[in-house]
Amino acid sequence: MTDKLWGGRFTAKAAKWVDTFGASISFDQQMAKEDLTASIAHVKMLGAQAIIPKADAATIEAGLKTLMTQLENGELHFTVENEDIHLNMESLLTDLIGPVAGKLHTARSRNDQVATDFHLWLKNRLPEIMAAISNLQTVLVEKAEENAGTIMPGYTHMQHAQPITYGHYLLAYFEMLQRDYERFEFNQKHTDMLPLGAAALAGTTFPIDREAVAESLDFDAVYHNSLDAVSDRDFALEFLSNAAILMQHLSRLAEELILWCTYEFNYIEMADTFATGSSIMPQKKNADFAELVRGKTGRVYGALMGLLTTMKSLPLAYNKDMQEDKEPVFDAYTTILGSLHIFTGMLESITVHKERMHDATVSDFSNATELADYLATKGVPFRQAHGIVGQLVLHGIQTHQSLQDMPLSELQAAAPQIEADVYTELTSEAAVNRRTSLGGTAVANVEKEVARAKGIIASH
Amino acid sequence: MTDKLWGGRFTAKAAKWVDTFGASISFDQQMAKEDLTASIAHVKMLGAQAIIPKADAATIEAGLKTLMTQLENGELHFTVENEDIHLNMESLLTDLIGPVAGKLHTARSRNDQVATDFHLWLKNRLPEIMAAISNLQTVLVEKAEENAGTIMPGYTHMQHAQPITYGHYLLAYFEMLQRDYERFEFNQKHTDMLPLGAAALAGTTFPIDREAVAESLDFDAVYHNSLDAVSDRDFALEFLSNAAILMQHLSRLAEELILWCTYEFNYIEMADTFATGSSIMPQKKNADFAELVRGKTGRVYGALMGLLTTMKSLPLAYNKDMQEDKEPVFDAYTTILGSLHIFTGMLESITVHKERMHDATVSDFSNATELADYLATKGVPFRQAHGIVGQLVLHGIQTHQSLQDMPLSELQAAAPQIEADVYTELTSEAAVNRRTSLGGTAVANVEKEVARAKGIIASH
Amino acid sequence: MTDKLWGGRFTAKAAKWVDTFGASISFDQQMAKEDLTASIAHVKMLGAQAIIPKADAATIEAGLKTLMTQLENGELHFTVENEDIHLNMESLLTDLIGPVAGKLHTARSRNDQVATDFHLWLKNRLPEIMAAISNLQTVLVEKAEENAGTIMPGYTHMQHAQPITYGHYLLAYFEMLQRDYERFEFNQKHTDMLPLGAAALAGTTFPIDREAVAESLDFDAVYHNSLDAVSDRDFALEFLSNAAILMQHLSRLAEELILWCTYEFNYIEMADTFATGSSIMPQKKNADFAELVRGKTGRVYGALMGLLTTMKSLPLAYNKDMQEDKEPVFDAYTTILGSLHIFTGMLESITVHKERMHDATVSDFSNATELADYLATKGVPFRQAHGIVGQLVLHGIQTHQSLQDMPLSELQAAAPQIEADVYTELTSEAAVNRRTSLGGTAVANVEKEVARAKGIIASH
Amino acid sequence: MTDKLWGGRFTAKAAKWVDTFGASISFDQQMAKEDLTASIAHVKMLGAQAIIPKADAATIEAGLKTLMTQLENGELHFTVENEDIHLNMESLLTDLIGPVAGKLHTARSRNDQVATDFHLWLKNRLPEIMAAISNLQTVLVEKAEENAGTIMPGYTHMQHAQPITYGHYLLAYFEMLQRDYERFEFNQKHTDMLPLGAAALAGTTFPIDREAVAESLDFDAVYHNSLDAVSDRDFALEFLSNAAILMQHLSRLAEELILWCTYEFNYIEMADTFATGSSIMPQKKNADFAELVRGKTGRVYGALMGLLTTMKSLPLAYNKDMQEDKEPVFDAYTTILGSLHIFTGMLESITVHKERMHDATVSDFSNATELADYLATKGVPFRQAHGIVGQLVLHGIQTHQSLQDMPLSELQAAAPQIEADVYTELTSEAAVNRRTSLGGTAVANVEKEVARAKGIIASH
Repeated sequence: MTDKLWGGRFTAKAAKWVDTFGASISFDQQMAKEDLTASIAHVKMLGAQAIIPKADAATIEAGLKTLMTQLENGELHFTVENEDIHLNMESLLTDLIGPVAGKLHTARSRNDQVATDFHLWLKNRLPEIMAAISNLQTVLVEKAEENAGTIMPGYTHMQHAQPITYGHYLLAYFEMLQRDYERFEFNQKHTDMLPLGAAALAGTTFPIDREAVAESLDFDAVYHNSLDAVSDRDFALEFLSNAAILMQHLSRLAEELILWCTYEFNYIEMADTFATGSSIMPQKKNADFAELVRGKTGRVYGALMGLLTTMKSLPLAYNKDMQEDKEPVFDAYTTILGSLHIFTGMLESITVHKERMHDATVSDFSNATELADYLATKGVPFRQAHGIVGQLVLHGIQTHQSLQDMPLSELQAAAPQIEADVYTELTSEAAVNRRTSLGGTAVANVEKEVARAKGIIASH
Repeated sequence: MTDKLWGGRFTAKAAKWVDTFGASISFDQQMAKEDLTASIAHVKMLGAQAIIPKADAATIEAGLKTLMTQLENGELHFTVENEDIHLNMESLLTDLIGPVAGKLHTARSRNDQVATDFHLWLKNRLPEIMAAISNLQTVLVEKAEENAGTIMPGYTHMQHAQPITYGHYLLAYFEMLQRDYERFEFNQKHTDMLPLGAAALAGTTFPIDREAVAESLDFDAVYHNSLDAVSDRDFALEFLSNAAILMQHLSRLAEELILWCTYEFNYIEMADTFATGSSIMPQKKNADFAELVRGKTGRVYGALMGLLTTMKSLPLAYNKDMQEDKEPVFDAYTTILGSLHIFTGMLESITVHKERMHDATVSDFSNATELADYLATKGVPFRQAHGIVGQLVLHGIQTHQSLQDMPLSELQAAAPQIEADVYTELTSEAAVNRRTSLGGTAVANVEKEVARAKGIIASH
Repeated sequence: MTDKLWGGRFTAKAAKWVDTFGASISFDQQMAKEDLTASIAHVKMLGAQAIIPKADAATIEAGLKTLMTQLENGELHFTVENEDIHLNMESLLTDLIGPVAGKLHTARSRNDQVATDFHLWLKNRLPEIMAAISNLQTVLVEKAEENAGTIMPGYTHMQHAQPITYGHYLLAYFEMLQRDYERFEFNQKHTDMLPLGAAALAGTTFPIDREAVAESLDFDAVYHNSLDAVSDRDFALEFLSNAAILMQHLSRLAEELILWCTYEFNYIEMADTFATGSSIMPQKKNADFAELVRGKTGRVYGALMGLLTTMKSLPLAYNKDMQEDKEPVFDAYTTILGSLHIFTGMLESITVHKERMHDATVSDFSNATELADYLATKGVPFRQAHGIVGQLVLHGIQTHQSLQDMPLSELQAAAPQIEADVYTELTSEAAVNRRTSLGGTAVANVEKEVARAKGIIASH
Repeated sequence: MTDKLWGGRFTAKAAKWVDTFGASISFDQQMAKEDLTASIAHVKMLGAQAIIPKADAATIEAGLKTLMTQLENGELHFTVENEDIHLNMESLLTDLIGPVAGKLHTARSRNDQVATDFHLWLKNRLPEIMAAISNLQTVLVEKAEENAGTIMPGYTHMQHAQPITYGHYLLAYFEMLQRDYERFEFNQKHTDMLPLGAAALAGTTFPIDREAVAESLDFDAVYHNSLDAVSDRDFALEFLSNAAILMQHLSRLAEELILWCTYEFNYIEMADTFATGSSIMPQKKNADFAELVRGKTGRVYGALMGLLTTMKSLPLAYNKDMQEDKEPVFDAYTTILGSLHIFTGMLESITVHKERMHDATVSDFSNATELADYLATKGVPFRQAHGIVGQLVLHGIQTHQSLQDMPLSELQAAAPQIEADVYTELTSEAAVNRRTSLGGTAVANVEKEVARAKGIIASH
């Protein structure tokens, strides 16, 4: 079997296939707007610095603005022959205004141009991601407020441990998302830097004004080393790391929501929009969207690992390997933005089975810690208190009674320190409300943290 | 800042956006042909087993074949409303032949259907990958044959170590690719298994004949457990692992080719098709395609890591997470097939600077081992021989003469065992040709291995 | 803040720290036995081929055997000064038998030596892994046999879908593990190859007999290209891929076992050995070991990604980067062997709550498919049958009756095709036992597959 | 083959093996100091809040301090029976002071305890990493200052592009490391948070004072949600992301240093301490440490991927999976700290072959851009200027003369705009020094950036 493709000599057709393999226009056209925006800023500066005649600069600027309008109207067509978004744009500009278009490329190179477009692209999208995080946080806080007193089992090792409230639970995710927000905010620092002016790798001999371009494009800073400017993809790696950590959070929430929708848990019900049914089993509602987001965690982890691999051991400055930098970032952006939107709508529309949640905390001995704490406050060393309660629970299991159902005499037989006031401490409500330590699940705490959370969101 | 997306109540438009997020038709339409093929086999069996009336089966089969023709002619149009390729096809079939189309779905579910399509898809493409590997191996062997005697430096730690031949070097990659070939061949075993008949997860109550369907679709085996049939993605993970290891090989070859194209090495020159030039520096030729393939290693590693992550901790049987299984595989397939083609053409068209390669082996003291071996055959313990030669090399560096240029008296002063016959052993040719151990770089060896390699390719 | 470490000039102490950073003896001493074994085979061959005097070969062989005994007795001590296991062994041998020890290194290099040790190490451990898989399979099959008729809910999207049996479920994992077994078996092919004789990179000038060494070390094949022999780590990457896929399987099983131990599911109970309790809540049993194995999936995925990264873009032949190849493999080996053992003991000792499992299938409408299939066999197109049953289920939910509890008249009102025989088809037992298609969950099927599985294990 | 391990019934010995599999003391003893430190702060607070008697608190505190002294003296011995560092310490404390030790565990759980230890551990090490980055930056800046005028080829696609200076090159890595520094600095924010007081998951009923503990342990903030406090590992994932990006930088630098040590490049020479020689080839110097660090990139990428995987889909709050969080972080810490130290010493001690670097820029036509820029300043559109220079370079290659060697008449034949002043612009020095744009490679620029860099380091 050897259906040999490369018969000693390339035909024109084979060469075209090779070109297609090398072209990036299929995906880098997503930066079309940024490419025009950066070119406009560049040519204005070229004119202002008299690097090219002002009239030429004006002609080019007008041409670029025409292209921008055409782009917005969906009238621009790109070709693989022109390889990438930069050469496509230059070609379209030449068609429009003639050879003067060639002056646009004075004092720049595709190396600093692509870096600039990519920075701009991400710079414009980080606030979108941050807003989507805020939206999800807002829903979490609203629902936490509604459910500050909705008692449910708290788990460790997936075993009932101590009662908590659904509001308290939701605020845990508020906190995670707040860290995500702060990470994307920090991501801005290394994104908001202008590479343009680094030219191919070494800077340029023309009297350019990089700070003017930075101001014109609203960049906070300029790169101070030309080699670094064209070689650096830290801002993209930071973005992918942040996206991976965010998806990790969503995957955890997804996992729990899926569990809580099961026949066995039955703690919540998804709105129809965020579930798929089965025409044959109307009681069946698959938490499809939570599952899908959980599954998409893989794609974002993969994107991070992919770009880390691509950049490993890459000599300075630009190498063609770096053409592989954009697709993982574009894909991760789409994935996390969509996932955040989905979770926002999903969380908002969940029906909570409060009674069912509460009932699950009654007969599960999850108030055992309460009794141990009770004993400890009466002076019993904690480790010893544990032992006493353990025996009482065993006794309860054997006699089919929960701790709160046992007569005082039985309790006192195990520990004489127990008095009648014990019973008020053995309800789930008491268990929850006694946990008033900072960050604890007590209803008053949850209400306090809701207020704090609202303040944080307001400051975004 | 809270431009709230989900205003308490979904509008129809928002719901559509949610549907789009959940739909897979944008990518699973790549399995359109496989979906029809599998449906044809399924309905034939339904008819043959009298599970549905033979006439209905014939009507459905004819309808499916019409769809196949339309597909090949590019006449089928899919919609997001119909979510995935399976529902799209069922809808198109219903449009074509009416409600009898509904009988096609008897005794199957989307869960076993999608698994079947995916198996079929990969089953059809593994031979393509294997053929592309064979093609590249063929070029490597041809070039190895041409260059069985082309002497070049052999490296460890990127330092000249001992002379080898370019032919010997190329055969190292033949060997790597042979293992790749064998891995994809083994990949067939777990791909060539039919899931259809597992239905949703538990098998079906209809008297289906899975082995007939397997035969009809040319599958080697059927899954023996219905839960496994719909939950298993090992075949995809094997594929991605194999693809990752293959890309690792290509990244190593790419790295070396790029180095050898540098001004400093200048051992090879890329054909114009596989390089990009610079209009301003005609002597500059970037090995763009080698770089791009090296960069694409990241994307394939990422695809593997992505699917491994998606599948981690996933309960049986089908979960929506698994919708994420196809894109990494589709992308890795396109990437490795393209990369193999590129390398085939690239390797075939490289110009080898033989003289330059040879010259690099003359004055680099890479014949030092020869002298040590010479001494060892004269009875000097190897570690001691090393020491003697080390001093001679130092002497050579200081006196600006290579070992082969030193007078016999100087050599004998260091080691009386040295005789006049030493000089014939100190050329690069001698160094190469004395390495006749199995797998060694001697020209005769390379020729022998070329013959063996041709036999292996012929047996593919 | 600049407490400068490197004050212009290294002290002896700093240099020692650098040496420690570079040394591998801390982990490659795990290959001490393999290093001696390979050296013994090598020196025997050197003697037999008269490359060194037979008497010297005998002295060296005796010395190596003494070292082997000392190793087994824990009497060998390695030092960082001697960098790696190879130099440590050579130094110990020299201490033991004097300078003749230097002749052992004739016609080999550390490059082919370390590759040989590593191949041998893995070659010796693959059967151990395969045996551990077989053991786990054996327990799965035994438990499947015991539970061929233990009815439980079958899930898709974590929702009850159709009843299956626990035996059927366990056999799904038998199948996954069988593929794991086959992957490690295939892994042997590329592990069972001898690199020794490749020397530094180019082969050797001595008349060595590599095939004799291969036979002596029980290798199936020898590398046919010296560059490949010292540069190849495919066997390690295959191992890590296989380990990652295996861990993915175990993570899925772990996930389900953990769920089934919850208060809400309560389908199984872990034996005390494989759970940790809480002194305070005796009813609480954490499935700690299942969780730990699930968590260890990360470490094995990481090991795979790590070695793939290390090998990316690495020029031939040996580079120091490759010193990083062993730790991920050693760690993955320990992890998967331990995890397999844990799961074997854990599965064997699980208590199954059969009644609870069965009860979960009664009132969950998971027999809805049965009714649809029943209608389809009566000639109703499947998609239409779905609709009818959907309405009946809705009716059932509203009237608090399951399908099997509804009077015939109500059923017939929805579909006149329904007759009295329908009731026998609506029990979970009937639902299970009607799924007799190959690989379906019917009890008879499970028994048949148990027999087949035993045959497969016996053939291992 | 079924050497069955689990013969139906566990022996005591098997159970011990299981315990060992589950224990973490082998690695979490690295947090022994942090465990004691946190316990001391905790017990002080328990006493101050009168949660336990002040006298008991004093006894416990004294006991813990004794243990701390013993730890520092290497006198503490841990056992697998006591599972982890926390239980080991409690057991040692009980041995020392008797049952009152049991009161230490009041109002805390192992869940918040381990999180606290881990936070403390990393909090203490981030400044160490940051100092090591500063040290490496310091050496880079010193060497950049020395080499502000050392001309060398600048590369894109590994092809000579334009001359740069070695100083400029080194400053590119200063910039990368500055971003690394800022990332670890940001990492402090989410590390410097106290989880203690979250207890098992829900907070505690005791009147603890978390802010006092935070102050006592010098934490900046406390977690505001108890579930989050025990479930969060963001700080560890941030650390691993930052470590991965740092290693990516070092891998790039390593790659280039290795290349520059080759026979072909020969631009630099490693000091003996950071290279390994070959006793037989004294001219051979392997850049072993650069290679090893490059290889270690894999281990750090793997650690990141490992922990991301472990955390994926993990329900709240603590699960045993999370025991897998520490080893990747410990290993990455050791790896990056060692790698930074190595690079600091290595960079400081490199010998630069300045003449060789400079010579490489003379005959490589890398001044072609200069000529094009020259033409552009004379009013030739840039794209057209490119074309003209391209032809001149071709002419130069054919006639074996560099651009600066061509007579003016030949130059003017190609472009009449060229005048005699052109020659001064065609030297490498001129090419470098004309690149005065901000961040460009001109010597004066490099000197200015050196000053700025010193200021940045001083502000660390």
